[in-house]
Amino acid sequence: MPEVNRRIVLDHRPEATPGPEHFRRDDQPIGELADGQILVRNQYLSIDPAQRGWIGGAGYAEPVAIGAVMRSLAVGQVVATRNAKFTQGECLYGWFGWQDYCAATEAQVIARVDPRQGGVSAGAGLFGICGVTAYLALTELGAPRAGETVLVSTAAGAVGCLVGQIARRLGCRVVGLTGSDDKVRQCLAEFGYQAALNYHAGLSPENLKALCPQGVDVFFDNTAGAIADAVWPLMNIRGRVVQCGTASVSSWEPWPTGPRRERSVLSKRVRYEGFLVFDHLPRFPEVIAQLARWRAEGTLVFHEDIEDGLAHAPAALASVYRGENRGKKMVRVADGERAL
Amino acid sequence: MPEVNRRIVLDHRPEATPGPEHFRRDDQPIGELADGQILVRNQYLSIDPAQRGWIGGAGYAEPVAIGAVMRSLAVGQVVATRNAKFTQGECLYGWFGWQDYCAATEAQVIARVDPRQGGVSAGAGLFGICGVTAYLALTELGAPRAGETVLVSTAAGAVGCLVGQIARRLGCRVVGLTGSDDKVRQCLAEFGYQAALNYHAGLSPENLKALCPQGVDVFFDNTAGAIADAVWPLMNIRGRVVQCGTASVSSWEPWPTGPRRERSVLSKRVRYEGFLVFDHLPRFPEVIAQLARWRAEGTLVFHEDIEDGLAHAPAALASVYRGENRGKKMVRVADGERAL
Repeated sequence: MPEVNRRIVLDHRPEATPGPEHFRRDDQPIGELADGQILVRNQYLSIDPAQRGWIGGAGYAEPVAIGAVMRSLAVGQVVATRNAKFTQGECLYGWFGWQDYCAATEAQVIARVDPRQGGVSAGAGLFGICGVTAYLALTELGAPRAGETVLVSTAAGAVGCLVGQIARRLGCRVVGLTGSDDKVRQCLAEFGYQAALNYHAGLSPENLKALCPQGVDVFFDNTAGAIADAVWPLMNIRGRVVQCGTASVSSWEPWPTGPRRERSVLSKRVRYEGFLVFDHLPRFPEVIAQLARWRAEGTLVFHEDIEDGLAHAPAALASVYRGENRGKKMVRVADGERAL
Repeated sequence: MPEVNRRIVLDHRPEATPGPEHFRRDDQPIGELADGQILVRNQYLSIDPAQRGWIGGAGYAEPVAIGAVMRSLAVGQVVATRNAKFTQGECLYGWFGWQDYCAATEAQVIARVDPRQGGVSAGAGLFGICGVTAYLALTELGAPRAGETVLVSTAAGAVGCLVGQIARRLGCRVVGLTGSDDKVRQCLAEFGYQAALNYHAGLSPENLKALCPQGVDVFFDNTAGAIADAVWPLMNIRGRVVQCGTASVSSWEPWPTGPRRERSVLSKRVRYEGFLVFDHLPRFPEVIAQLARWRAEGTLVFHEDIEDGLAHAPAALASVYRGENRGKKMVRVADGERAL
């Protein structure tokens, strides 16, 4: 049993997006497990855009305290247990933080990970919040029907690429908005989109209309802001807008303005809802099983963008906000590194 | 059988709200009924804020053509019939327009009116679109549960006063926003609101918070604009916002801006939906029966504000936009007047 637990803690709150300057190392000894606890050795940290909100207080979560270990989802292995529900050696997905070891309670565990389904890292990737969000937000809130047009505003992102593939599977016409010509190509070649557009290059009403000649029935919005403003006028009667992220709005202080939605919501009878995956924890096993079946059939593409070394977690998070990741960003907490 | 049908037609489109200057008389002879038609003699015209949208094109309805009879709901009596589904003498509610007589097809009829349930005028009042909108928009989209806080933004209006009463009946805490101190008193004394506020006088975050100490679970919004902007920050997690009107926004050209809703919808997981009663025509008989039961029990207050004379319809409509009506505005197409 190692005696030191490397930890990355929040040093001070960022004004906008977090980067390495907002964190510091604060190693601590690993204490004794309390009754009911398990000791999890982290293997993969999940790097998520939502982490900005966990620092700044996005409204749904208590913000991380200054000096506390950075909140993070992770996949790790149980190396010691004082809880009969968990056995030594099994892999778990949960709230284990930016550190080597987490003395966790049952409440911190979200799902069990079966490494035979795509490897250990998939537990924090396809079978983590990205996959479950894509599946539930699309099918429950978006409720797409075959033949309808589904537009995804971060089409090549870790959630968006799955939304596109699932919507295509459900028989929809799937249109993607993404941030580069490379990603446009990826959307068309890999993720099953029938049409895609680089929103930096051509976000005009004419271009969008050409992409969606039948209008938009489901708008899966991860960006908000100007991109959303361009899509709303295309919404069809009784369309659904799923707000799953607000990636294009870098700050909510001062609170930004935009075109009023009231008339669109009313005259189109749009159903506009926000989705937070943590409202749906009991559904993780069922959704993971569904995604695993599709993955086994070979019909679900999902890329992991893995960086090595716990110390790189802050930089990895910053790179996500610059849109540099190619797939779900993770940090491998390497064994070799651990000895340093 | 009279030979002349007095008609009020649209002369030209208003820039903002319609008034007498936008209409003119254009009397015509009453022709022969075609097979399948009925001749309805109008008794009460329903004066509705939504009529502005039917002229200007609110997005859900084909705009009234220049020179055509002004579109209006009305209650009238069948005076001749060439349709076996309708009998002479019965009262109907439907699209009969600003005129004495309407040669109508079955598609123009919305509901049968039973004059024993509150008189003929109630067919265009409590049992018309106001009542059905209040009931369905609140119960289906708002889905209030006992103990929740329901806030209504036109609390003393023809729809709002019913929303307040129905929500109170369902065990909610009901809070009203309305446009005068008189209406505040009416909300508290007559419509069952536990709290009410004159939004012209005190629409501050502190005042609203004091009115809704537990936040807002259901926001029934008939105003949009600045009033809505004041309410949105109070929405509770998984709250519902029902957009039923946009009365406070006088023009959508140029399209007005306001605080972005994306973060509220996402972080609060608000369900935000628009309601249009004409999507729910099959449900009218069932809802009317429910409202009639409550009315018979004496637990539903509803005021009608009736003006005499077809010729006053344009002025009556203009008065609604000035907020001058005290109850559901209607125009009685008087018999005496008819002979003129």
